[in-house]
Amino acid sequence: MTYRSGRHFLQIPGPTNVPDRVLRAIDAPTMDHRGPEFGVLGKYVLEGLKPIFKTKNPVIIFPASGTGAWEAALVNTLSPGDKVLMVETGQFATLWQEMADRLGLTVEFVAGDWRSGVDPKLIEAKLKEDKGHTIKAVCAVHNETSTGVTSRIGLIRKAIDAAGHPALYLVDTISSLASIDYRHDEWGVDVTVSGSQKGLMLPPGLSFNAISDKAIAASKKAGLTKSYWDWAPMLAANEKGYFPYTPATNLLYGLKEAIDMLMEEGLDNVFARHDRHAEATRRAVRGWGLEILAKNPEEYSSALTAVLMPEGHNADALRKVILDKFDMSLGAGLGKVAGKVFRIGHLGDFNDLTLAGTLSGVEMGLKLAGVPIKASGVAEALAYLGEANTGAKSAAA
Amino acid sequence: MTYRSGRHFLQIPGPTNVPDRVLRAIDAPTMDHRGPEFGVLGKYVLEGLKPIFKTKNPVIIFPASGTGAWEAALVNTLSPGDKVLMVETGQFATLWQEMADRLGLTVEFVAGDWRSGVDPKLIEAKLKEDKGHTIKAVCAVHNETSTGVTSRIGLIRKAIDAAGHPALYLVDTISSLASIDYRHDEWGVDVTVSGSQKGLMLPPGLSFNAISDKAIAASKKAGLTKSYWDWAPMLAANEKGYFPYTPATNLLYGLKEAIDMLMEEGLDNVFARHDRHAEATRRAVRGWGLEILAKNPEEYSSALTAVLMPEGHNADALRKVILDKFDMSLGAGLGKVAGKVFRIGHLGDFNDLTLAGTLSGVEMGLKLAGVPIKASGVAEALAYLGEANTGAKSAAA
Amino acid sequence: MTYRSGRHFLQIPGPTNVPDRVLRAIDAPTMDHRGPEFGVLGKYVLEGLKPIFKTKNPVIIFPASGTGAWEAALVNTLSPGDKVLMVETGQFATLWQEMADRLGLTVEFVAGDWRSGVDPKLIEAKLKEDKGHTIKAVCAVHNETSTGVTSRIGLIRKAIDAAGHPALYLVDTISSLASIDYRHDEWGVDVTVSGSQKGLMLPPGLSFNAISDKAIAASKKAGLTKSYWDWAPMLAANEKGYFPYTPATNLLYGLKEAIDMLMEEGLDNVFARHDRHAEATRRAVRGWGLEILAKNPEEYSSALTAVLMPEGHNADALRKVILDKFDMSLGAGLGKVAGKVFRIGHLGDFNDLTLAGTLSGVEMGLKLAGVPIKASGVAEALAYLGEANTGAKSAAA
Amino acid sequence: MTYRSGRHFLQIPGPTNVPDRVLRAIDAPTMDHRGPEFGVLGKYVLEGLKPIFKTKNPVIIFPASGTGAWEAALVNTLSPGDKVLMVETGQFATLWQEMADRLGLTVEFVAGDWRSGVDPKLIEAKLKEDKGHTIKAVCAVHNETSTGVTSRIGLIRKAIDAAGHPALYLVDTISSLASIDYRHDEWGVDVTVSGSQKGLMLPPGLSFNAISDKAIAASKKAGLTKSYWDWAPMLAANEKGYFPYTPATNLLYGLKEAIDMLMEEGLDNVFARHDRHAEATRRAVRGWGLEILAKNPEEYSSALTAVLMPEGHNADALRKVILDKFDMSLGAGLGKVAGKVFRIGHLGDFNDLTLAGTLSGVEMGLKLAGVPIKASGVAEALAYLGEANTGAKSAAA
Repeated sequence: MTYRSGRHFLQIPGPTNVPDRVLRAIDAPTMDHRGPEFGVLGKYVLEGLKPIFKTKNPVIIFPASGTGAWEAALVNTLSPGDKVLMVETGQFATLWQEMADRLGLTVEFVAGDWRSGVDPKLIEAKLKEDKGHTIKAVCAVHNETSTGVTSRIGLIRKAIDAAGHPALYLVDTISSLASIDYRHDEWGVDVTVSGSQKGLMLPPGLSFNAISDKAIAASKKAGLTKSYWDWAPMLAANEKGYFPYTPATNLLYGLKEAIDMLMEEGLDNVFARHDRHAEATRRAVRGWGLEILAKNPEEYSSALTAVLMPEGHNADALRKVILDKFDMSLGAGLGKVAGKVFRIGHLGDFNDLTLAGTLSGVEMGLKLAGVPIKASGVAEALAYLGEANTGAKSAAA
Repeated sequence: MTYRSGRHFLQIPGPTNVPDRVLRAIDAPTMDHRGPEFGVLGKYVLEGLKPIFKTKNPVIIFPASGTGAWEAALVNTLSPGDKVLMVETGQFATLWQEMADRLGLTVEFVAGDWRSGVDPKLIEAKLKEDKGHTIKAVCAVHNETSTGVTSRIGLIRKAIDAAGHPALYLVDTISSLASIDYRHDEWGVDVTVSGSQKGLMLPPGLSFNAISDKAIAASKKAGLTKSYWDWAPMLAANEKGYFPYTPATNLLYGLKEAIDMLMEEGLDNVFARHDRHAEATRRAVRGWGLEILAKNPEEYSSALTAVLMPEGHNADALRKVILDKFDMSLGAGLGKVAGKVFRIGHLGDFNDLTLAGTLSGVEMGLKLAGVPIKASGVAEALAYLGEANTGAKSAAA
Repeated sequence: MTYRSGRHFLQIPGPTNVPDRVLRAIDAPTMDHRGPEFGVLGKYVLEGLKPIFKTKNPVIIFPASGTGAWEAALVNTLSPGDKVLMVETGQFATLWQEMADRLGLTVEFVAGDWRSGVDPKLIEAKLKEDKGHTIKAVCAVHNETSTGVTSRIGLIRKAIDAAGHPALYLVDTISSLASIDYRHDEWGVDVTVSGSQKGLMLPPGLSFNAISDKAIAASKKAGLTKSYWDWAPMLAANEKGYFPYTPATNLLYGLKEAIDMLMEEGLDNVFARHDRHAEATRRAVRGWGLEILAKNPEEYSSALTAVLMPEGHNADALRKVILDKFDMSLGAGLGKVAGKVFRIGHLGDFNDLTLAGTLSGVEMGLKLAGVPIKASGVAEALAYLGEANTGAKSAAA
Repeated sequence: MTYRSGRHFLQIPGPTNVPDRVLRAIDAPTMDHRGPEFGVLGKYVLEGLKPIFKTKNPVIIFPASGTGAWEAALVNTLSPGDKVLMVETGQFATLWQEMADRLGLTVEFVAGDWRSGVDPKLIEAKLKEDKGHTIKAVCAVHNETSTGVTSRIGLIRKAIDAAGHPALYLVDTISSLASIDYRHDEWGVDVTVSGSQKGLMLPPGLSFNAISDKAIAASKKAGLTKSYWDWAPMLAANEKGYFPYTPATNLLYGLKEAIDMLMEEGLDNVFARHDRHAEATRRAVRGWGLEILAKNPEEYSSALTAVLMPEGHNADALRKVILDKFDMSLGAGLGKVAGKVFRIGHLGDFNDLTLAGTLSGVEMGLKLAGVPIKASGVAEALAYLGEANTGAKSAAA
C-alpha cells in the first residue's frame, strides 16, 4: 500500500477517530472471560455506561454492530405481527423499518423528506388515532446519520404521553450517544439502541440496549424468537459482571478507557464541544454558499453536517478528489440522497484544529472539483471557533 | 489492581493467548468501512479464510461471538419446526441444542456420556430410520471444548452418505479451526461455524459461517426469521470486499495478520504442533496418574485436554490454587462435569516452553492442592517434547 | 491529567509527530541484541540509512540524543587545542560551539545575526587567510532549528575547495535530514551529525554520524579522549549488524519502519512535500503581515518557519494561549530571540490538512492574544496548497 | 522472517522481557519536551527513581546505554591520570577498566578468577597500603552479568571505611538494580551506575547515575573533559523536571510505568521473587549435575545463573540447539569464559511458570546437545518452587 504522510482525516460520521488511549487499551492481552479479574472489568463497564445513557437501569452489551442492537430491541419486546410506528427520517430509519418488516412485524412507516426529524405532533396524532392500541412500539432515530438531522426525543415522549398511549418507545442513538445530550430515563425511553464506534470513540464491534422496566416486562411476553439477543441470560450473568457467551473482551478494555475519558472531560463539556464544532461547520457551509440538508435549526445535528451539492455537481466526485488529494474520508450520501449530499463527521475524539483541517480540506476540495463557492467558509468557521473556544475543559472544572 | 510479575498463562481452551503481532494489528486506527482501502482488506480476509476452512466456497464473517454464528447457521438454513439431529457430546452441544429449541426447531438430542464424540454409526442408524426425511439437519461439534473430545467429521459425512439422507450437515469448529485438521469441502459440510478467539489467535468478537452451495440453496427457502444473520446481503456486499452493516474493522486487521501468520507457519505445521502438544499433555496426565476425560484415543483433542479429578477432590479448588499461586487460568468443568474436571488449553499461539510452564503449573498446583499424584508428569512431557520437537517450521520449509 | 479531546498538535520543530506505524514498531518485544535475528535488523538499518544521508560510507548509530552525535563528531576527529571554525547562525550553532570549547578545542566563532545562514564567501575568506592550516574543521548547521534558516552546505563545500584548505567539514543535519535535500557524499561532508526525532519521524533517543574516509582516517590520529563515542569498535561490530554495547533495540525497530516509510514515499516526494508546506506557511505569515525571521529566500527552511512578533508582543504569551485554547505546541524563541519569535514546525509525518489546522491555530491564537494581523494567512495558505497539491505520491509513481 | 508460534523466551541476563504495560506506555505519542506536561513527567520519574536506588540524592538520567553511564561516572568525578582501583570480577569489570584506561585514568586492576566477587579484605588492604591517597576511586560491579556473581557492596564500603581512605566509591548496578537489594545511601556509594533494560524492565536506551554529595563536590573539580555526560546542566534542568538536551521521551513514559509497577509489587517482594527464582535455578543446575560458575554461595546472583559446561562440550553449540528448537535465547559466555559457560537470566518481569518453561528448555536442550546430565533439574526446581511460592504479592500486602 502506498504510504501517505501524516494522519488520515476520518471525517465520516462514524466510525470516528479512535483515540490512542482507546487503541492502546484494546491491544492488551485477552483475559479469561470467566476469571475474577474479568468480573471486575465487566461490572465497571456495565455500571459506567449508565450515566452515559443517563439511566439507572441496566445497559446490555452485545458483541455485535449497532445493527444487532436494533434487532435486539425489536425481538426482545415484540411479537410476530405487532405493529410499530416509524418515520422515514432517512436511510437508517429506512433500514430499521426494513429489518422490522423482515422480522415479521407490521410497520407503519410514515414518509419523510430526509431533511426533517420525527414530528412530535405527527406521533401524537397517529397514536390518538390508534384507539385500539394496536401500535406496540414507536421507533425513532435520535440522530439520523444519513442526514444530520436530530429528532427531539423528549418532545416525542411528551407526544406519546399526551396521546395517553401505552406503546413502547424505542430510540436509536447510534450516532448521538456521548455526542449529543440524551436522557434515557428522563425521556421515558424503553429501549435505547447504541453502538461503540461513534461518540464512544471505540472501533465498531460493540452495541447496546439500555432498557426500562417496562421493556423488561415486555420482554417476558414478547413472541419473536430470540437467542443471541435475549436479554434474560444477559441480565442474569451481568449481575456478577459476566456474560452468557464469550464477550468481545478487548473492545471492553477500550470501553473502560472511553468511559474514563468521557468522565474526565465531563459529559456537559463533551456536548458543548460537539455543539461548537457543529456550529462552526454550519458557518463554513453558509460561507461557501452551500445548503445544509437539515431544514430546521432546532433539529441540526451536533454530530455531523450533511451538505447539499449545487445542481450539476456530484458529491461522490468531490469526495474522491478530497480523498485523493487530502487523505480525508467524508461520508457519502446514502439511499435517496446518494450523490447529492456529502456528510462531514465532527463527532467523537475531535478538536478545533482538526475541525479547521477538515473544513480546509472541504474548501480546497470544492475548488479543485470545480464546485462554485461564494467565499471562504473556513474563515467563517475560524472567526467563530476562536471566540467560542474557552480552553481546556474537564469534569472537575 | 495488584500487579503480578511476568505474563499471565491463559491456558483455558480459548480465548487463547493473542500474539503480539495480532494485538499490534488491531490497534491501528479504524478506517472508513466504505472507502477503497477497506475493500482491499475485506477481500483479503474473505479470500484468506478459505484455505483455513479448506473450502472454495464463501465464508461469512459476523461481528459477533461464536454463539452468533451458531444462530446464523440455523436461521439461514431451517424453518420453524424443522427437525435437527444432535448428539450430547458435552456442554456446547447442549447449548447449541437449547438454542435450536429456542429458535423453534425440533431437536432430537441423543444422550451422550460427555466422554465420547458423535458416533458415526449412530448417525447412520438414525438417518436410515428417518425414511420420510423429516430430519433436516445433522449438527455436530467438531471439538467439544467442554470435554476435549473431537468428533470424526469425515466419518460422520460417510455415515450420512451411507444412509442416503439429504439432511444438511452443520458443524461447529469454534475450538478446532486452525488447530486441528478440518476440511469443509472434502467432508461435505454445509455450514461450518467458527470463531476468532481460539486457533485463529484473535480476541473474541468475530465469528464465521463457511457455506456450501447446498446451504446457500437452503437459505433461499428457509423460514426462520433472520436479519442480522442473513447471508444474502453479506454475500452481495462481500463481492467487493464490503459488508452490509458496519464490520468490526479492527478485529479484521487482526484477522489479516492471523491469516498471514498461519500461512507463514503452514497449516500442516500448525496441526503437527497442536498434535505434539496434546500428546505431551496426555503423557503428563498419565504421569500424574490422572485420567483423561476423553475415552477414545481416536477422539483425543489436539486443542485441549480435560482431566478428571480423583474422587474427593474439586477441580475448581485446584484451579483457584493455580490461579492464585502461579497466575495461570485453566478451564473449569462445565455443566455436568462442573467441579469434576479441569481443562488445559494448548491451542493457538503456543510453543513447547510455554507448554512446559503450563504443565509445571498444573503439577505444582496438584501438589499444593493435596491431590495425590503418582509421579512427575512434567518429566514425561519433557521426555517426549525433547524428542518430538523438530525445530522451527515454516510453510516454505 | 485532564483529558483533552482530539489529538495534540505537536508543531514544534522536533520531536515531530511520530506516525502510528513507527509507534507500533517500537512497542514490539525487545530481542537478544547478540542473537541472529538482531544481526538481520542491524544490517537492515545500517544499510537503509545510507541512501537517506546520500552516502555510500558507513553511518554510525548511537543510543543517544543528537547532542551526543555532535560530541562524537568532534572527539573522533580532533585533538585538544585544535582550531575549529564555526558561525553563529543561531542557538544550536552556539551550543555546538560551547561544546567544542568545553571539550578543549579552540573555536573561532564568527558572529552572526541569527537570521542568516553560513556565508560561503566568509568561509572561503577565513580559510584563505589560514595559510598555516591551523583550522582543522569547519562546522556548520544545515538547518538552524532556532531560526528556520538553512545554510547552503554544497556552496560551503565549494568555498572550502576554492580555498584549497584541508579542513574537515562537519555538518549538523539534526533538523534537516529526511526533510530537506542533503547529500553527504556529493557535498564532501566528512561527518554528518543527525538525530532520530525530526525528519526520521522517530522518538528521540538515536543519533547518527555519517562519516567520510577522510574522517575515518582522522579518527585514527585524533587526540581527544573517547570511549562511548568511539567509531572504531562501532565500525568493527557493525560489519555483522551488531553494536559494541547494548543498542536501543526498540528504537531500531522504529528506525526500520521509518526507513521503509521514507522509501515508500520516495525522498524526492518527501522533500517536495516539505517545500510545499514551508511555502504555504510563509504565505500565511505574510498574509498576517508578520515577518519571517529568515532573511534570505534562498536560505528559507523547509522544516520550520520562525516568525517575528510585532514590537510589544511576547511570543511566549502567544504560545501559551495557543497551547491552552487549541492544544497545539509551537516552538519557543531560544537564546537571543527568546520571546521575540515563535517557531512553527512543519516537518516529519505531516500533511496538508494538519498544516491547515496548524496555521488555523496560529491565526486564531494571534487574534486571541491581541496581536494585530492584517488578513487571513490561512486563506493565503489554502489558496496555495489547493493548487500545489498533486495528490498521493509514492516512490513507485 | 519465519513466524515461530508462541512467545520467544528471552532469558539472557538483559535486556529482559519487557512487560506489555511498559511496551504500551512507550508507544504513546511523543510530546513537547519543553512543555508543561513534560515537566510533570520529568519530576515524576526523577523522584520515582530515588526509592529504587534507595537514595534521597539526585539520580541523573541519560539518553544512552549503560556504557554511557559508566563513562559519566568517571568523567564527572576524576581527572586525567587519577588512579582507580578495580577488580577483575568478569567481562564487565574488564570493560569498565578498559574504558577508564582509554579515558586517561590509571587503573590498578586486580586479577580475578571470574568466579568470585570483589573481596572486601583485598580492598581494605589495598587502601591501607595507599598512604598517600593516590587512589581516587574504588570501582565495583555489584552484579557481574558475565558470571552471575555479586559483590557485597555494603561490606566493601565497610572496608573502605576501615582503611580510613577518602576514595570515591563507584558501583555498577546495571544488572542488579530493581532485582537485588541495593542501597545507595546506606552503603555510602558515591556514584551508582545503572541501566534501563534489566530489573527496570524497559528496553535499552536509558542509563543512570545516582550521585552522592561527595560525588557532586568532586564533579566541580574533576578535570576529565565532559559535555554530554556533564551532571551540572542536568542537575540544573532537572529541578523543574526538564533536561538540558532532548531526552528519550518515549522511554521515559516506560520508566514511569516501570516505577509504578515496582511500587505496586513492592521492592521487597521483587527481591524475594528474584531470590526464589535464582534458588530454583541453582537447584536445577545441581539436579543436572552441572556446576554453577559462582564459587561462593554468599555471592550467588539472584538475577542470573552462569553454568559451566562439562569438559568437551561447547556452550554456544548448546545455546544454538535451544534457540533453534525451543525459541529461547540464553546468555553466551563472554571473554575468558566464552564457550565454557551459558547464562540463564531470571530477572525482570518474570514468574514461576516462565522459569519452569525456561529450565525445561535448558534440560531438553542439554539432552538434545548430548550433554550428559544426572537427573531432572526441572523436577528439583519445581519441588522447590511449589513450596516457596506464597502467591501474589503486592506492596499493600
